[in-house]
Amino acid sequence: MTLKVAINGYGTIGKRVADAVALQDDMEIIGVTKRRPTFEAKMAIKNGFPFYAADQEFVKDFEAEKIPVQGTLKDLLKKADIVMDCTPKKCGYKPMYEEFGKKAIFQGGEKHELTGLSFNAIANYDKAIGADYVRVVSCNTTGLCRTLYPLDEAFGIENVTAVMIRRGADPWDSKSGPINAIEPVLKVPSHHGPDVQSVMPNLNIQTTAVKVPTTIMHLHSIVVRLKDKATTEDVVETWDKTPRVKFVCAKHGIKSTAQIMELAKDLGKKRSDLFEIAIWRDGVHVVDNVLYYYQAIHQESDVVPENIDAIRAMCNLESDKMKSIEKTNKAMGIE
Amino acid sequence: MTLKVAINGYGTIGKRVADAVALQDDMEIIGVTKRRPTFEAKMAIKNGFPFYAADQEFVKDFEAEKIPVQGTLKDLLKKADIVMDCTPKKCGYKPMYEEFGKKAIFQGGEKHELTGLSFNAIANYDKAIGADYVRVVSCNTTGLCRTLYPLDEAFGIENVTAVMIRRGADPWDSKSGPINAIEPVLKVPSHHGPDVQSVMPNLNIQTTAVKVPTTIMHLHSIVVRLKDKATTEDVVETWDKTPRVKFVCAKHGIKSTAQIMELAKDLGKKRSDLFEIAIWRDGVHVVDNVLYYYQAIHQESDVVPENIDAIRAMCNLESDKMKSIEKTNKAMGIE
Amino acid sequence: MTLKVAINGYGTIGKRVADAVALQDDMEIIGVTKRRPTFEAKMAIKNGFPFYAADQEFVKDFEAEKIPVQGTLKDLLKKADIVMDCTPKKCGYKPMYEEFGKKAIFQGGEKHELTGLSFNAIANYDKAIGADYVRVVSCNTTGLCRTLYPLDEAFGIENVTAVMIRRGADPWDSKSGPINAIEPVLKVPSHHGPDVQSVMPNLNIQTTAVKVPTTIMHLHSIVVRLKDKATTEDVVETWDKTPRVKFVCAKHGIKSTAQIMELAKDLGKKRSDLFEIAIWRDGVHVVDNVLYYYQAIHQESDVVPENIDAIRAMCNLESDKMKSIEKTNKAMGIE
Amino acid sequence: MTLKVAINGYGTIGKRVADAVALQDDMEIIGVTKRRPTFEAKMAIKNGFPFYAADQEFVKDFEAEKIPVQGTLKDLLKKADIVMDCTPKKCGYKPMYEEFGKKAIFQGGEKHELTGLSFNAIANYDKAIGADYVRVVSCNTTGLCRTLYPLDEAFGIENVTAVMIRRGADPWDSKSGPINAIEPVLKVPSHHGPDVQSVMPNLNIQTTAVKVPTTIMHLHSIVVRLKDKATTEDVVETWDKTPRVKFVCAKHGIKSTAQIMELAKDLGKKRSDLFEIAIWRDGVHVVDNVLYYYQAIHQESDVVPENIDAIRAMCNLESDKMKSIEKTNKAMGIE
Repeated sequence: MTLKVAINGYGTIGKRVADAVALQDDMEIIGVTKRRPTFEAKMAIKNGFPFYAADQEFVKDFEAEKIPVQGTLKDLLKKADIVMDCTPKKCGYKPMYEEFGKKAIFQGGEKHELTGLSFNAIANYDKAIGADYVRVVSCNTTGLCRTLYPLDEAFGIENVTAVMIRRGADPWDSKSGPINAIEPVLKVPSHHGPDVQSVMPNLNIQTTAVKVPTTIMHLHSIVVRLKDKATTEDVVETWDKTPRVKFVCAKHGIKSTAQIMELAKDLGKKRSDLFEIAIWRDGVHVVDNVLYYYQAIHQESDVVPENIDAIRAMCNLESDKMKSIEKTNKAMGIE
Repeated sequence: MTLKVAINGYGTIGKRVADAVALQDDMEIIGVTKRRPTFEAKMAIKNGFPFYAADQEFVKDFEAEKIPVQGTLKDLLKKADIVMDCTPKKCGYKPMYEEFGKKAIFQGGEKHELTGLSFNAIANYDKAIGADYVRVVSCNTTGLCRTLYPLDEAFGIENVTAVMIRRGADPWDSKSGPINAIEPVLKVPSHHGPDVQSVMPNLNIQTTAVKVPTTIMHLHSIVVRLKDKATTEDVVETWDKTPRVKFVCAKHGIKSTAQIMELAKDLGKKRSDLFEIAIWRDGVHVVDNVLYYYQAIHQESDVVPENIDAIRAMCNLESDKMKSIEKTNKAMGIE
Repeated sequence: MTLKVAINGYGTIGKRVADAVALQDDMEIIGVTKRRPTFEAKMAIKNGFPFYAADQEFVKDFEAEKIPVQGTLKDLLKKADIVMDCTPKKCGYKPMYEEFGKKAIFQGGEKHELTGLSFNAIANYDKAIGADYVRVVSCNTTGLCRTLYPLDEAFGIENVTAVMIRRGADPWDSKSGPINAIEPVLKVPSHHGPDVQSVMPNLNIQTTAVKVPTTIMHLHSIVVRLKDKATTEDVVETWDKTPRVKFVCAKHGIKSTAQIMELAKDLGKKRSDLFEIAIWRDGVHVVDNVLYYYQAIHQESDVVPENIDAIRAMCNLESDKMKSIEKTNKAMGIE
Repeated sequence: MTLKVAINGYGTIGKRVADAVALQDDMEIIGVTKRRPTFEAKMAIKNGFPFYAADQEFVKDFEAEKIPVQGTLKDLLKKADIVMDCTPKKCGYKPMYEEFGKKAIFQGGEKHELTGLSFNAIANYDKAIGADYVRVVSCNTTGLCRTLYPLDEAFGIENVTAVMIRRGADPWDSKSGPINAIEPVLKVPSHHGPDVQSVMPNLNIQTTAVKVPTTIMHLHSIVVRLKDKATTEDVVETWDKTPRVKFVCAKHGIKSTAQIMELAKDLGKKRSDLFEIAIWRDGVHVVDNVLYYYQAIHQESDVVPENIDAIRAMCNLESDKMKSIEKTNKAMGIE
C-alpha cells in the first residue's frame, strides 16, 4: 500500500514535490491545495492531481474560473498520511496538522524552532526516522550541507567561511529587484551559518550574503580549512562519491550559472530543474590545506529530493539513508 | 522507410530540431555535427545521436575529451536525405550541400536570397513542396507570420506597425549585454518587416526594434489596421483556431514574459520550450477597426516545428499543410 | 523681490526642483519638507535648504538623527508664495494648500482632474498664466509633448502611434523589478496617450507601453503620420530650433541609453541629469510622409525645467513662454 | 610654475584624471589624446583641453567630424613633464615615453612588472617619490589597500579573505554582459590578492571573485583576522580617521549600491563620481577578533585622486603623503 501524501500549497516547491512524489512507487499524491485560480491551479488539474481549495472562502474563486474543487484542505487532511507544507513562510498551519493528527514536513522558510528538527538527507537522515514534524532546510543550506558534510566526514573541518551570492528574485517573479544593484546582508553572520548548524551542530561556519540582479541560481564562494591533510584530488574524489553533487567544467563551456541552466535544460528534467548542487571542477583548489570552491544552487529544486527522503524517514518506509537517497534519485532520474 | 535527416550544428536550434525530428515517425536523425567538445557535444552522445565532427580538424579535440566521433560532416552528408543547417549565420555550407546533391534547410539568420524561398508553415507551406533549399524564417518573423497570416485571411490587413522589444542575449549567453540599457535599431524599417514580406509579399508592414536587458523572450507590440469589420471577439476566435498560437491571461497570473516561461516549465516540454506564440488575451483590443495586441516569442524554440514541416514539404512526405502541422504538433505535444 | 517657493517632498523630483529654483534669480527656496531622516534629509541640510518636517509626528525622528528642523509643513506654507508638491502620488495635500490660500504645482503622478490644468512649457505655457493649481505632466508625457508639439505646429499631425519602453525602476530603487522579464501594459491605450491629450487636446495619438529591466531611461519608438509634406531634413531642422530637445548620434558612439547617460555625465550637470529629450539623429526617417523616430527620456529630470516655467506662468513673473524657457534654460545650463 | 601633464587616452579614466588635474594649483593639462571622433572627443574640446590625435592616422577622422586637432601624441609628449597613460591595457606605449624621456603613470589594467612600482597613496606614497614609472593599482585593489592598510597599521593583520562581487560592465558599456548570470573567477586566488601584495608585500590575503549583472559598483565582502585585540568601535574609529573612506548606513536608507550612487549624485561631484570607498557602518562587526565588513567601489573614479598623488610624489611636488592627500582631496571636494 502506498503512502498518502497531501501537498498544502501548490506553488514553486509544492508543484515540484508533487511531481517527485508521483514518480516514487511507495507514495502517491492524494491532493494538492491552492488559494488562487491562477494558471498553476489549472496546471495541477491538467497534471491529474486531485485539487482542493486551501480554505472554503477560496472555493467560489475557483468555481468562477471553472476549476473543479474536491473540497478544502481539511477534507484533504483527513485522508492523508502526511502533509507537505509548501505554503509561504509563517502561514501557521502546524496547529491544524496537529489537530488532525498528521505528520507534516515544512520548508526552509520556516524557523528551526517550529519543528526542532531540521533535515538534510546526507547529513542527518537518521534523526528524522519516525519523527512527526520535520523542516527541510532551505535551498542554500541544503547546498552547504551536501558539500560540507562529506568533507567533514572525510577530512574533518576546522572552519568554513562562505559568501552566498544570492539571486534577487525567482525566474517567475517580475516584481522584485534589484535591477541594477548589489545589496549586502548587513547582519553578520547571515542566517545561513546558524541554519547549517541546525543540521550539523558542531560545524564552525561563518557566512555572509549579498543579493544580486539575477534570477536563475545562487552561487557560493566557499573557503574550508580542513583538519586532515588533503589534496585537490582527494576532495574531488570525495564529492565524486557524494550523491546530488555534480561537477561542471569551464573548459567544457560552463563558465557561469547561465550555462549550468542550459545544461539542466539539456538533461531534460521537467521544468529544466537541476536537483544536484553544481561545483566547478576547475574551481576546486586546495592550497596549504585550505580548500576553495564555488558551487551553484538551483533555488527552486535542490530541496525536492530531500523532501522525498524526509517522507521515507518519518513514515518508516526506509531506515537506511543511502538506500532512500538512491531510491529517490533513481525515480527522479538523478544520476 | 523513414527519411534520413542530418543536423549540421548541434547548438541552440540544432539540438531542438534533432529532438523534434526524433519524435516524428516519418523521419529520423542519422547524425549531428559539432565543432567543439563542449557539454553540448557530450549531451548529443548521451541522447544517442550519432556524432560527427564538423570538419576533420576538430576530430582530435573531441578525441582529447573522449567524445567518440563517427566521422566528419562529409561522411554524414553522404548518408542523408536532407541536411538541417543550424550553424551560425554566414557559415557558407550551401556549396557543400549542392556538391553532395542534398536538400537543405537553413535558419533565419541567413538572408532570403540564399534560398529564394523563405518558409512559415501556416503562411506558405505549399511553396516549399518539393523545393531543394528553404530558409525557415527567424523566431521573430515566425511569430509575426503566425498571428498576421490568419488575420489577413479572415479580415484583410490594411497595414501593420510592429515594435519588436528584443532580448539582449539568449539564456545561455553570459557574454552579451546590455546589462542596463535600451538600444534602438536605428535603421527603419528594421529587418523584420521586409523579412515578413519574404513570406507574405503583399503585406503592408512597418517595423522598428529595440534591444533590452532580458534573456528569456522577445515581446512584440503590434497595431493592425484591418480591412473588414471585426471585433475583439472575432479576432480572438480567429486565433483560437490557429495552430501554434496560445492565449495567456494576466488575470490568471501571467503578467510578463517571466510567468509565460513559468507556464512553459509547467507544460513540461523538454528544455521548458514554448513552441507556440503567446498572445495576451486581455491585451487584445479592437478600437475603430484597429487591432492592438502583444505577443511573446520564445526565441530558442518557436521555429522548431516549422523546421519539421519544411522537411515534410520539401521531401514530399505530406502535401496538405494542415495535416503536416497537426502531425508535427501531435508528435511534439503542442496542443 | 524674489518669489518664495516651498518644496513639499524633498525626494527624486523635489530635490531637483529645489536646486533648479535656487539657480534662478527671480525665485528662492524658503524651505523643504521630508518625512524620514534619510541621507537625503541630511543632504538637504548640507545644501543649505531650511528644513521642515512634513508633519509634527516626524519631528522626533529627525531629532533622533540630529537633523535640525525649522518647523512643520504648515509653518512653511505660511511663508510661501507657491508650493511645489513633490510628494508621492495621491498624498492628498491639495486641501491644505487651499486652506492656506497658496498656489501649488503638482507632478505627473497625479491625475489631470486634480487641477484641471496639465502643463508643458512649449505646448501650453499661456494656459497656466495666473493659474492657482497646475499639474506638470509626467516625464514620458513631457517627452512626447516636447517633440510632438513643434511637429504639429510645423507640419500638422494626422496621427501618432507611440510605444513606451519603460524602465522598471529608478536608479536608486533596489526593491523593484523585473530583473529578467518584459511586462506589457495590457490596457490599450496606455495612460500616456490620454495624458498627452490633457496638454494637446486635438492630437490623435495611440500609445502602448511595456516595462523592461533597466533603470536609467525610458525609450519611445514613435511613428507620426504628418499632414503637410515634410522630409527628414525638415523634421530635423524643426527640432533643431526646439528648446530642450537634443540630438545624439550612433556614429559618435551613442548607440543606447547607456551612452546617453555617459554623455550626460560629461555634460556635468548636478546629479548627471539630462533635462533635454534625446533624439537619435540617425534614427529619424521620413518615408512616404510617415515619420519614424526614437527618443530617450531621463525620467528623473526632464520635468524639472517645466516646473520652473510653471512657477513663472502661475505667478505672473513672465508672460512670454519663449522668454521663460530661455531664462530657465540659461540658469540651468541647458543649451 | 605648474607641472605640465599630458593625458594619453581621454576615456573613462583619462577624462576624470584630466578634470582632477585641472582642479589642482600645482599642475595643468597641456593636452589629451584620443583615437576616435566620438562624443567624448567633442566633450574634450568643449571642456577646453588641447586635443591631439593618438596617432597621425586618426587625424583625418577627427577632421571629418570637424574636431580640431593640435597635433599627435608625439607632439604632445615633447611639451609634457609627465604623461598619464589612460589607454586600454597592453597598448604598449612605454617605449615611446622612454624615447621622449618622460615620466609616466600607468593604470591598474597593466601588470606590476611594467613599472616594478605599484602605487596607493595611503599605503606606499613614499616609494613613488622621484620615480619615473608608476602603476596606480586598479579600482578594486585601491579599495582593498585603502581599508586594509590602516587596519594593519593599527592592529596588525593575521590574514584576510575577501570576495569581490564585480560589476559585469561599466555604465556606458551596452555590449557586455551577463544579463542574467553569475560567473566565478575559477583561478584561485583571483588576481586581486597578489595585486594588493604588490603594494602591501607582507599582507596575508586570499581573494576570490565573481562577476554579476550590475554596472554601477563592485562590492567586497571581507573577513580580517586581526593580530591585536580590537572592537567594532576601534575599527570604526580607525577608518573615521582614514582619508577617502566613507561610512554609509542602511538605517539612513542606504541598503545597496543603488543608494550609494544616489548619495553620490546628491554630493554633486562631476559625473556623480564617488572617489571614496564606501563602507556600511552597520555592516562592520568584530566577533572574536575577526572583523567582517562590506565595502563598495565606484570603479570609474576611486583611483582618480591616487593618480594626482602619484604625480606629486614622482615629480617631487610634495614629500609628505598626508599633505599630498589633503591637498588633492581639498581641490577635488573630497571630505
